[in-house]
Amino acid sequence: MSALWCAFSGQATRCRPVVQSAVSQRSLSGTCARAAAAAAVYKSPVRVDFYYDTISPYSWLAFETLLRYRPVWNLEIQFKPVFMAGLSQATSSNFLESLTKNQNKTRHMFQDIVRMGQYFKVPLRIPESPFYMLAVVGSLKQQRFLTAAQMKFPDVTEDLSRSIWYRGWAEDLDIAKPDSLRMIGRRAGMSEEEVEEALAASETQEVKDRLKSVTREAVDDGACGLPFLVFHVNKGDTDVETYFGSDRFPVIAHRLGKFMRQFKLEIEVQEWMDDLEWNGPVPDPNNFKEIEEPAEISKCFLSIEQYDELNQKFVDNVKQDFNIKDK
Amino acid sequence: MSALWCAFSGQATRCRPVVQSAVSQRSLSGTCARAAAAAAVYKSPVRVDFYYDTISPYSWLAFETLLRYRPVWNLEIQFKPVFMAGLSQATSSNFLESLTKNQNKTRHMFQDIVRMGQYFKVPLRIPESPFYMLAVVGSLKQQRFLTAAQMKFPDVTEDLSRSIWYRGWAEDLDIAKPDSLRMIGRRAGMSEEEVEEALAASETQEVKDRLKSVTREAVDDGACGLPFLVFHVNKGDTDVETYFGSDRFPVIAHRLGKFMRQFKLEIEVQEWMDDLEWNGPVPDPNNFKEIEEPAEISKCFLSIEQYDELNQKFVDNVKQDFNIKDK
Repeated sequence: MSALWCAFSGQATRCRPVVQSAVSQRSLSGTCARAAAAAAVYKSPVRVDFYYDTISPYSWLAFETLLRYRPVWNLEIQFKPVFMAGLSQATSSNFLESLTKNQNKTRHMFQDIVRMGQYFKVPLRIPESPFYMLAVVGSLKQQRFLTAAQMKFPDVTEDLSRSIWYRGWAEDLDIAKPDSLRMIGRRAGMSEEEVEEALAASETQEVKDRLKSVTREAVDDGACGLPFLVFHVNKGDTDVETYFGSDRFPVIAHRLGKFMRQFKLEIEVQEWMDDLEWNGPVPDPNNFKEIEEPAEISKCFLSIEQYDELNQKFVDNVKQDFNIKDK
Repeated sequence: MSALWCAFSGQATRCRPVVQSAVSQRSLSGTCARAAAAAAVYKSPVRVDFYYDTISPYSWLAFETLLRYRPVWNLEIQFKPVFMAGLSQATSSNFLESLTKNQNKTRHMFQDIVRMGQYFKVPLRIPESPFYMLAVVGSLKQQRFLTAAQMKFPDVTEDLSRSIWYRGWAEDLDIAKPDSLRMIGRRAGMSEEEVEEALAASETQEVKDRLKSVTREAVDDGACGLPFLVFHVNKGDTDVETYFGSDRFPVIAHRLGKFMRQFKLEIEVQEWMDDLEWNGPVPDPNNFKEIEEPAEISKCFLSIEQYDELNQKFVDNVKQDFNIKDK
């Protein structure tokens, strides 16, 4: 039963301080962005449309890397949560099917995800039942919640995205049930009221349509999987370069440098050239705060079990849902 | 008709000097390897099994990168040509099928190949009919020829591999017909006799079986596509790390560093650490000789048309094959 507590509690106790400091950077990232903008005010930012689904671990890698390079390359990132299964259907991609058929591919991908996480300094773990997560649970609930939250409270998008990935791909906990989303939202720095508002909105036709239309937009922009990145290299829509995956950043740096050489004013070129390098997954070690490893699952459960410390509301919910009588 | 001349001639004239100097490095690479071995004699080399098919452009990228890093990381590379279609069948990979179904994927992959080529400094071009090349022509003839040549003249493997890629993925010329293989072999520095011997052997059961068994070995080693790299990090078969694709070299450097820290003698560690970095696709610019861009196809045809300059034997072959009468 302890597993349930962990999965359902929005207000975990000993778990929470570790995780929250690691995940929520809502105010911090705002400050960073402002400072970077001031330093780079003479340059035109490069707009990037970042299509992603929080069920995709490679999307998490690209997400963190983009954020780290945002001040360095002066990126203006448009976060575009899409629904992966919808994208797969629209592009006739058979990603999940290929994983079940080609066992070598599956085995290799899980190794790759862990190694890439270590290299990129993102605490990725393979869930105990990745196919259950990917194919049964899916991402509809999370992506609708994220879309609703983004529409109502745009500045929460980054922390909320990270918080979903963290819960699913670092902690291996449920990510789709309402109480999981409550916990995720609170960890991302949302107030209880904001969370409830986003949760309610996530079931509206407006939000469902929005998620569909952004997914459609990704397909129209050429997405063949996630993450998918669209760089608007000349500020307009005419000079667009698209990238799939989390492993093309060296090429992106190389290409952005070329474009800058072509389009930017001479006087700015040298500085751009210096900046537009790929310096590995952590471009600025001095300003880098590593995301903390999640607590061991067993320790998490242990602390959660002391449920008298939990917010009574969530305890009551769970008791009611699972018909648990007080002793 | 001029296209045919280009495709069939083993002894092209004006085309040849440009291409040959670019492709054949048989003697050069031998020298390099010896010098590097001397410098690194105190270190145990890291063995890498490199499974590849010359019809795979990403395999070419990994091939060149491995060769460039061989002296830097002290790699002992085992070249293992396999038959891609056989591998796909054995692993139930539906790579070609997914390309035809998911047009966004196809479009994106072709862009990606060109950009990766530019970044890696490998002159990749998209063939005029990539699906014809990949799905109709395939790689059976080339991989059998390469296997035969490797069995008989092992030291030709590297240059011959590059020469096949160059002809297919840089020049967009036929790669499967016997006369194409003759030209490819000569460009790789093989004598006319060696080429004929390898060509004859490529039809024997021994060579066919060898290609099959290496392909099987790749599957058993976990290959889910090509290129597939198996690093024997502790000299034996117990500590093995596998990588798929041409885009994991930064991770490979990171991992090799970790292993060396664990296994190598303390006194050697620091030097290993310094070496085991990823310094982009060209680790040693001073000793780097870029592969030349192929001639423009039209210019190639133009010079080939002056066929009185060509080796008469091949001209006669083509005339006979295509029933061309002398004027």
